[in-house]
This record gives sequence, structure tokens and C-alpha cells, in this order.
Amino acid sequence: MQDQLLLLFPLGAGLAALVVAFFRYFWIKKQETGADRLQEIAAAIRAGAMAFLAREYKVIVLFAAAVTMVLVLGEQGYERLVAVSFLVGALMSALAGFVGMRAATQANVRTAHAAERGLVPALTVAFNGGSVMGLSVVGFGILGLSALFLVYSRVFGSEVQVLNGLVIPIISGYSMGASSIALFARVGGGIFTKGADVGADLVGKVEAGIPEDDPRNPAVIADNVGDNVGDVAGLGSDLCESYIGAIIGSVVLGGALGSFRLAILPLLIAGVGIIASIIGTFFVRTREGGHPQKALNLGSFVAAGLMLLFTYPAVFWILSPEQGLVVTPLGLFLAVLSGLVAGVLVGIITEYYTGDGKKPVLAVARSSHTGTATNIIAGIEVGMQSTGLPVIVLGLATYLAYLAAGLYGIAIAAVGMLSTVGYQVSVDAYGPIADNAGGLAEMAKLDPEVRMRTDKLDAVGNTTAAIGKGFAIGSATFTALSLFVAYEEAAGLPGIDITQPKVIVGVLMGAMLPYVFSSFVIGAVGRAAFAMIEEVRRQFRSIKGLLEGKEKPDYVACVDIATKAAIREMIIPGLSAVVIPPLVGYLGGAEMLGGLLVGAMVSAVMLALFMANAGGAWDNAKKYIEGGAYGGKGSESHKAAVVGDTVGDPFKDTAGPAMDIVIKLMSVVSLVIAPNLR
Amino acid sequence: MQDQLLLLFPLGAGLAALVVAFFRYFWIKKQETGADRLQEIAAAIRAGAMAFLAREYKVIVLFAAAVTMVLVLGEQGYERLVAVSFLVGALMSALAGFVGMRAATQANVRTAHAAERGLVPALTVAFNGGSVMGLSVVGFGILGLSALFLVYSRVFGSEVQVLNGLVIPIISGYSMGASSIALFARVGGGIFTKGADVGADLVGKVEAGIPEDDPRNPAVIADNVGDNVGDVAGLGSDLCESYIGAIIGSVVLGGALGSFRLAILPLLIAGVGIIASIIGTFFVRTREGGHPQKALNLGSFVAAGLMLLFTYPAVFWILSPEQGLVVTPLGLFLAVLSGLVAGVLVGIITEYYTGDGKKPVLAVARSSHTGTATNIIAGIEVGMQSTGLPVIVLGLATYLAYLAAGLYGIAIAAVGMLSTVGYQVSVDAYGPIADNAGGLAEMAKLDPEVRMRTDKLDAVGNTTAAIGKGFAIGSATFTALSLFVAYEEAAGLPGIDITQPKVIVGVLMGAMLPYVFSSFVIGAVGRAAFAMIEEVRRQFRSIKGLLEGKEKPDYVACVDIATKAAIREMIIPGLSAVVIPPLVGYLGGAEMLGGLLVGAMVSAVMLALFMANAGGAWDNAKKYIEGGAYGGKGSESHKAAVVGDTVGDPFKDTAGPAMDIVIKLMSVVSLVIAPNLR
Repeated sequence: MQDQLLLLFPLGAGLAALVVAFFRYFWIKKQETGADRLQEIAAAIRAGAMAFLAREYKVIVLFAAAVTMVLVLGEQGYERLVAVSFLVGALMSALAGFVGMRAATQANVRTAHAAERGLVPALTVAFNGGSVMGLSVVGFGILGLSALFLVYSRVFGSEVQVLNGLVIPIISGYSMGASSIALFARVGGGIFTKGADVGADLVGKVEAGIPEDDPRNPAVIADNVGDNVGDVAGLGSDLCESYIGAIIGSVVLGGALGSFRLAILPLLIAGVGIIASIIGTFFVRTREGGHPQKALNLGSFVAAGLMLLFTYPAVFWILSPEQGLVVTPLGLFLAVLSGLVAGVLVGIITEYYTGDGKKPVLAVARSSHTGTATNIIAGIEVGMQSTGLPVIVLGLATYLAYLAAGLYGIAIAAVGMLSTVGYQVSVDAYGPIADNAGGLAEMAKLDPEVRMRTDKLDAVGNTTAAIGKGFAIGSATFTALSLFVAYEEAAGLPGIDITQPKVIVGVLMGAMLPYVFSSFVIGAVGRAAFAMIEEVRRQFRSIKGLLEGKEKPDYVACVDIATKAAIREMIIPGLSAVVIPPLVGYLGGAEMLGGLLVGAMVSAVMLALFMANAGGAWDNAKKYIEGGAYGGKGSESHKAAVVGDTVGDPFKDTAGPAMDIVIKLMSVVSLVIAPNLR
Repeated sequence: MQDQLLLLFPLGAGLAALVVAFFRYFWIKKQETGADRLQEIAAAIRAGAMAFLAREYKVIVLFAAAVTMVLVLGEQGYERLVAVSFLVGALMSALAGFVGMRAATQANVRTAHAAERGLVPALTVAFNGGSVMGLSVVGFGILGLSALFLVYSRVFGSEVQVLNGLVIPIISGYSMGASSIALFARVGGGIFTKGADVGADLVGKVEAGIPEDDPRNPAVIADNVGDNVGDVAGLGSDLCESYIGAIIGSVVLGGALGSFRLAILPLLIAGVGIIASIIGTFFVRTREGGHPQKALNLGSFVAAGLMLLFTYPAVFWILSPEQGLVVTPLGLFLAVLSGLVAGVLVGIITEYYTGDGKKPVLAVARSSHTGTATNIIAGIEVGMQSTGLPVIVLGLATYLAYLAAGLYGIAIAAVGMLSTVGYQVSVDAYGPIADNAGGLAEMAKLDPEVRMRTDKLDAVGNTTAAIGKGFAIGSATFTALSLFVAYEEAAGLPGIDITQPKVIVGVLMGAMLPYVFSSFVIGAVGRAAFAMIEEVRRQFRSIKGLLEGKEKPDYVACVDIATKAAIREMIIPGLSAVVIPPLVGYLGGAEMLGGLLVGAMVSAVMLALFMANAGGAWDNAKKYIEGGAYGGKGSESHKAAVVGDTVGDPFKDTAGPAMDIVIKLMSVVSLVIAPNLR
């Protein structure tokens, strides 16, 4: 059998994922949408979300065109094909976000309607909606990559020299395309969602004293649109790029070990993971009265278990004819295992630091009792402390994966960690769908029982999302590491000596970038929120009868403001991650750029953990107080906790999740230009 | 002339500094102390400060004894003398803090009394008080080091082999001693001062509604004691260790270049700087009605100008007989210059981000108008953004110094930057003296005119303190870099390849440490403040007539609580910086430890800039609003700004300034154990 034909397996697995997603999508479309009022609001949200995506993608197309131009002009001969890879990667990432969001904006209203009947039908609709996103992410991601790989290696040949010299370098562009889109989608979506959220809350809840999701609030539709463009589309593109980045990192290192089979092994493992994920999604079911968490956990265990079960023989089978490799099948399996275990552990630690009822969250809640200042300080304390254990776990896992299978093992650990991402994203996307359904129920004034059911679904999603964040940051660390090693090889460096001033200056500058980036993004949320506040106040002032519920607010104006702010503000941070590596590389040399990548990586990992966990702890401390502790809703403690939560919003939903994309995008851009720095 | 005798110059300069400090101290003691009420309060503050220092030093003695034991047992033969160096370094650092604080607690009351006569006498007393600290820091620092160097090189000889093999390794212990004391003093003092400050403010100002520094507040003496133990004694030990660290770093690298003269050049440059600083302090004088800022600036320019003027010929003269060196006198002078210019630039940038009336502070003030959440977000945004330019400046300066005089040039740049630290600390310590005088005036109910004068003096001190922070963090970066390179040589590593998993794991773990350390220290301030709040509330409840001013509160109980909290909480962070490097070094090897140092360094530099500048911006935004903007004192904007300021307190005065000591202490501990890791 020709080795290249092995690529048909991930190709097939990707297609299978898309087929299942397709059927789920049409199943959702067939579900009932409930009362007219519900449909009307849902249509407004859908229209806003699609309008945003259309504008966002317009900017992205311009950006992609510019990058393509640069790549075509900057490279020679066949290497120009890197531009093709880039475009395909960008397209796949964008498609994953688009399809997933379309499904989510159909599923939200149907979940709300299903929740009128009970928890079980609501869970089914919401999860199916999420799984369209989950399976699209892995489906599109692996489909494009396998197809390119197959075509390139058929055209140029699969001899290892050709592979390392041509096929792999041009295939790296695929990751760059996916990461670029992801960064814009994450940052743009994040600014939109948090700008709208903060704006809606500050004027609506605090100034006007109307409840959350009240239809009298002009920003309420924008807020719900934000959930879709940020938490669904942004998340989808984000995880699509993590997935692709991890695979590409190992492809490069596998090629460097001189084996075609090692180069394609990550694709095969990913294919196995897709099959396991698809099966896992079928296990999410519960009886009325059962606990949705158990249903989601069961699916998760099935997916992860099958993954390990299939991977073990697969690795042995694929590597059996290969001789003289420095890695053994057992070593590779252990690397996969160490990645998976590290991801789960980081998730559990994250859950400890941000989970409802755990010590850190209780401490933040208690500190709200002595005022806002102590609440903020406590949240920052928790966030900073929470970097400790995850970094130790990741450090140990990196080292173990290295002992098990060398540098290639580190890359494979990331693939192992992300192999069941199809299932993981299904759960991640299910959360915002349930959340949106709750908002719809509120706005359409459905029975309060409905809102309670969707809240129950949403709460479950939050826990799983925390674990998902552990996987995202853990895999980003491994992936960035392997891309970094790949960069070193591609740039022809014999090593990067950190005691060299060039390198250390690079490390210093690199470590600064995530701070400045975060500052800009957090500032953008503030500016977007400010514009939103002005508009909501204007409508309250100028639209007579609005607060009495006699007149309808101008929802579209608010959506428009959030859209414009997000699009405008995403450009500088998005561009900077692409422009800085070539700048430093061409001016300061390959070694300084290497230093820059390491500095950016470690700094970004710390900030990502710090911001995500501080934000999570503030959020849940507020919820804990809303549950009645320290005076409950409306008390001074509650007010302090609301401030903490608001500060945490841009931390955990805008700047924090952008960190891991930034470092991977910078790494892969460096990888693409590395041969020119020799 | 024997080369060793050159060491008599810094020895003499150190003695000269101490003599001047001695005369200034007795000049201060001779000044009048004013009304009985004033003297009584000042005595209480002095007693509290001295009691704290006594308790703090008791713990430090235990710690020093333990470290000495370990050093004696861990080393062999003459290398055991490293314990002697350690003890002398610890003693000198402690003495600098002690003498400086004694002077400050005498000068505060006399400044308050002098301010009754006018601005000029008050400025003179306050600055003379500060200069005792400034000159003690450099005097004790250089005296001990030169004496040890002279003795060791007389005993063992000054051939370069002996120097590198024995004298320099055992002399490194001096820096370790100074850094250890500094870390305890900074952290202990920082927890005391901010715990007392936050506690006094939250209950006194917010709950009881009495003004700042009101004698009815039981925590008011503790608050003023805190200014002395934190901002004066802590600062003194801190800059003493920066100074020594920078010199030791260059001594090691100079020795490695194979020249005795290069090894002692940093001491000679420091000696030149001391003379320039002493002269500078005589230029601080103004007429009544003149601006104190101008007086301080003049002294600063004189000190820096003379320093450069003297250094140029000195470098040429000392290096003229040396042949075949890789460094040139001109190159060294340029390295000194690049260090000095970088320090000034970082100071100016710091001043921009935190200065009264500048754009960032105005933005934070404006954001207070929309509430606490936006104030906090704006401060964090400013802090994160403020890492950008300083890091670029430091990166460029590092590279220029390297081009000018190699790795040794980087170390010498730090020495250049800190050479006028005698003058710099005089100004830094003058600020808290003026601040304390203001508090005394308030408590003793002196004419409000007096408070206005001391406030004017204090405001000037704040600007200069910002620039001082620039020097502290800038020199710490250079010093940590040179200690790192010295570590590499001492550990016999041919370089530290960052693409090795061992190293990268070290970098990751290292980058995490400053976060966990900050979390702990910030938490400690919170816990100390909490204990203080409870005590103040208890006194308000149980002491009848206290709020009506009929009964006196129990000041001593509050001082005691802050003391206990600070002593207890400083132990873990203090120990961890000393224990972690050997742990990682012996378990993970010399390369992992190298990675750890780099990771810790870059992470600490970022956090130091972020925390110091966010804290500074919040502080000045509050002051700007208190000046009448956005509703002025008592408005909602003001309340929001007060919260920001309170959050910033542990940032800028406890965790932030500890960062640079942590990285240097870790580096020098690693340097001391490096030969054992070969």
C-alpha cells in the first residue's frame, strides 16, 4: 500500500464529521420554533450575528488578499504555493465559524421552545446545535489539511527530502491561514460581545434598574448577538486553529525525523479522535429529572476512552514497518497519554480556582463583603496564584513527553490533548446556545420555569467550558513549543543560546508583547462599551414611552455600534501579530526572533491563565452572592461583586482567550518566513 | 603602584559618604522639634518603627544564621569564606536601612516644625534627612565590598586565576547577603505599610468618616510607622542591594575577561559616583517662593554630570596600562552612558504613564466617572501598556552596551545607571519624610498652612520617585542579565540552548514564580489590612468617647498587629526566593536553572512595570479628582478613584518593588551554588 493513501483515513474521518454535522443541522431546522414573539426576537439576533460576520469576513478577505500577495511576491517557485495553503486554511477556519454560528442561531430559539416541554428535549436540541459546531471545526480543519497534503505529496512525491524541503514548508501556510482568521474572529467577536454586555449591564441594570435581558433595553439584542459571534463563532475559529496548529507542529517535527509516516501520524491520530468524538456525541442523553452534567460527562469519557483505545493499536500498526526511528510506538502512545492527562489536570485545577463553591471563589465572595477594593484584590490574587500548578503540570508533561518520544513527543502530546476537540467544542458551543435560549425566554416572556431549565443547562456548560480552557491553554503551550522547535530547524539554527544578548533582548521584547496586546484589547472593550452606553442613554432619553414598555427601542442601532467598534478595533491587534515577527526577524536576525517567540510564549501562557481564572473567579463569586450569601442580590457585597465581574469580562472573554492564538500565529508566521532568514 | 591599592579609592569614597551622613544626622538632631504634642506623636512613631525593625531583624538574624550554616557545610576549604561575605553583606544592608530610618524618624518631626517657618527650612531638613539614607546606602554598600575585596585579594593574591577561582566566587556571597535582607525588608515593610494604610483608610475615612491622619483613628500611628519601615527602611535596603548587585555582576564578568583592573573597575566607577552624589546633595537649595522641584533637579543634574565628567578620564587612566583586552575605554564609557540614558528614559516614560495631568492619568480619572469597574479596567490597561516603551528602551540599551563593550558592557551599564544612587536615594527618602511631616502636622493640629507646605514638598518627591523606579527596574534588568551570564560561566555551561526541553521547562516555571510570589504578597497585605480593620472597629466600639475626641485610642495595639502580620507573612516569600534555585538546580540541572532565571527575569520585569505604573496611575487619578475634577472629593467618581488607589497600593508599594529584588536574589543564589552544579 502506498503510504500516501493513509491520508485517505483522516480525509474520510473529516468528511464523516461534516456529514453528521449536516444531518444534525437539518434535524435542528425541523424542530419547532415556538411562539411568534420568540421567532421574531430570534430572527433579530440571527440577522445581527450574520450581519456582523459578513462585515468581519469582508475585512478578513482584504487581509487575506494582502497576505497572499506578500506570500506570492516574497517566495520563489513552488514555494509560492504557501499562499494556496494559507487561503485554504483561512477558508476552512472561516467556514467552521460560519456554519457553527448558523446552527447556533437556529438552535437557540428551538432550545427555548423545547425547554417549555422539559429539560430533556432542551438538552437534546442545545447539544445537537453545539455538535454542529464541534464537528464542523474538526471536519473542515482536517479535511482541508489532508486534502492539501495528499495533493502536494502526489504532485511532488513523498520522499522525505521532498517532504522536508517543499511539501511541509508550503503546508505550514495552512496553519497560518487558520490562525489569522481565528485571531480576528476571537478579538473581533470578543470586543463585540463584551462591549455589548458591559454597555447593556451598566446602563440597563445599574442606571435604569431593569432586569437582564429585558426587551426594553436597546442593547439587549446586541448582547445576545455577542454571545453568538464571540462565544460561538470566535470559539469555533479559535479551536479550529489550535487543532490545526498542533497537527502542523507535529507534521514538521515528524518530517524532520526523516519519516513520512511520522509526518502524517498526527493526521491519523486526529482522524481517530474524530471518530471517537462522533461516537461520543451519541452518548449525550438523559432522562427527565436526570442531571445534564452526567450526560455530558458520559460522552466525554466515551470519546476520550475510545480515543486511547483506538490510538494504541493504530500507532503500533502504522509504525511497525518503520525501522531505525528514534521514537517507539509505545513512547508515542505515552506522549499522547501525557498530553491528555495534563489537559485534564489543568482543567481540574482551573475548575478548582474558578468553580462555584470552591475555596478561591468563596474567598473572593467573602472579600466582596469588605468592599469593591478587596474584591478586586482578591480576584487578582486568585488569578496570579492560579498560574502555579498548571505551569508545573505543563512543565512536567512537556518533560515526560520529551523523555517518551523526544521533541516530536511534545508535539504529539498537543495532538493527543486536542484529538477529541470535536466533542469538546460541541460542549463548549452548547453553553452559549443554552444561555441564548434563556435570554430569548426572558425577552419573549415565557414561563419562568423555562428560564430555570435553560439556566440549569447553562451552568453545566460553564464547568465544562473551564476544562475546555485548560485544554486550550495546555495544547497552545505544547504547540507553540513544537512550532518553536520547528522554526529553529527551518531557520537552520544550531540552537538558540539564551545567554546571547541578541536572544535575551528578543525574549524581553517578546514577553512585553502579550501585555501591550492585552492592554489594547481591554481598552477596545472599554471604548466599545462606552459607545454603547452613550447610545442606550440616548435612546432612553429620546424615545418616549420606552421604559414604560409602550415603544420599542432601536435594537439595530446598538448592534451596529458594537459591530463598527469591533471591526475597527480588531485590525491593529490582528495585524500586529502577523507583522512583528517578520520585522524582528529581518531586522534583528533569526536568533532574536527565536528569543521573541519564547518570551511571547511564556508571557502569554501566564497572562492567559491569570486573566481567565481571575475572570472566572469574579464571575462565580458574583453568582454565589446572587445565590443569597453576604446579603444576596442588591446588597453592597453584590454591588462589589458585580464590579469584579465586569472587570473580569474583558479578561476572560476577550484578552485571555486571544493569548494562545497570538503566540501560535506569531510562531507559525515565523516558521513560514524562517527559510528566508537563513 | 599595586593594583590592589586602587581599591582604597572606593573604600575612601564610602567612608567619605558615611562621614557626611554622620554630620548631617547630628545637624538634624540639633534642629528644634516644636510643640510637645508634635514631639509626643513623633516619639510614638519612632518607637513603633524601631520596635518593628527590632522584630524584623530578629527574624533576619535567624535566617542569616541558617544560611551561614548551610554555606559553611555546603562549601569546602576557603570557599567557606562565602559565608563571611554573606554575613558582611547582610550586615551592611541592614545597617543602611537602620541608620536611614533613624534619621528619617528624627527628620520628620523637625520638618513639620520647620514648615511652620516656611518652605525653605522644611526642604532643607527633609532633604538632609533623606541624604543620610542616601549616603548610608552607598557608603555601607561600597565600604563592605571594597574592604572584603581588599582583604581577600591581599590574602589570596590578585592574579586573575586566583581571582576567578576563589576571590570572586566567595565575594559573590556579599551580594547574596544584601539581597536577602533587602527582600525581607521590602516585603515585610511593604506588608506593614500597606496593611496599615488600607486598614486605616477603609475604617477611618470610609466607615467612620473622619479625615486622613486624624488622631482619633487608632491605626493612624501604625500608618505613619508604615511610611518609615516601608518607604524608608525598605527602600534603603532595596537600593543598597541593587547597587551591590550591579557591582558584583560586573566584578564577575570583569574577572572572566582576565583582568584585575576590569574586575575592580565597577568599584572605582561606583566610587566616582559617590563623590559626584555627595557634591550633588550640596546643590539642593532654594529661595523662599522658589520651586523645590528645581532644587532637586539641579542636584540631580550636577550629580549625573559630574559622574560622567569624572568617569571619562578615570576609565582611560585605569585601562591605559592594560593591553589586549576585548574592551576599550571608550567602549566602556559608552556602556556607562547607555545605561544612564536608558535609566533616564525609562524614568521619563514612567513619569508619562503615572504623572499628574498626563494623558494616561487623565484617562483613568475620566473612566472613574462611569464607575469603579471602568476605573479598574482603565488602570490595568495603562499598566499593561506601560510595559511597552520601557522594554524597548532597555532592549536597545542592552544591545548598545553589548556592542560597545561586550557582555561586560551590559553589566557596566547597570553600574553606570546606579552610580549616582547616593543622590537618587536621598531624594527618594526625602518624599516619605515630607509625607510623614504632613501627617504629624495634621495630628498635632498645626496651622493648615504647614500641611500645604509639606504637601508641596511631598508632591515633588512623588515625581522623582517615579524616575527612581525607572532606575530601579532598569538596573535590575541589566544586573540580572549580567548575573545570569556570570552564572553560566560559573556553572561551566557552554551556553544555554532554549530549544532544549529542560531549558524551556525552566523558563516556563521561572516565568510563573513572580506571579505566585505577587499573589502571596498581595494576599498578605489583604490579610494584614483585614486584621487592622477588625481592631480599629473593635476600638471604635469598645472605647467610649473615642470618636468625640475625649478618649485616646490604643495606637500600640494597631502597630503590634501590623508588625505581627508583616513579620509572619514575609517569611514564606523571603525563603522561597532562596530555596527554589538550589532545588531546581540540584534536581533539574544547571541548564534548567538557567532557564528558570531567564523566565523569572522577564516575567518579573513585566510585572514590576505593570504593577508600579498601574498603581501610580490610579494614585494620581484619585489626586486629580480630589483637585476638583469630575465632582471632586466625595463624588461618585472620587469613590471609584479611591477604590482604584486602594487596589494599586499593594501593587506599587509591596509586590511591584519586590520583583526586582526577587530576580536578583534568585540570580545571585544561583551564582553562589553554580560551581557545585558543574
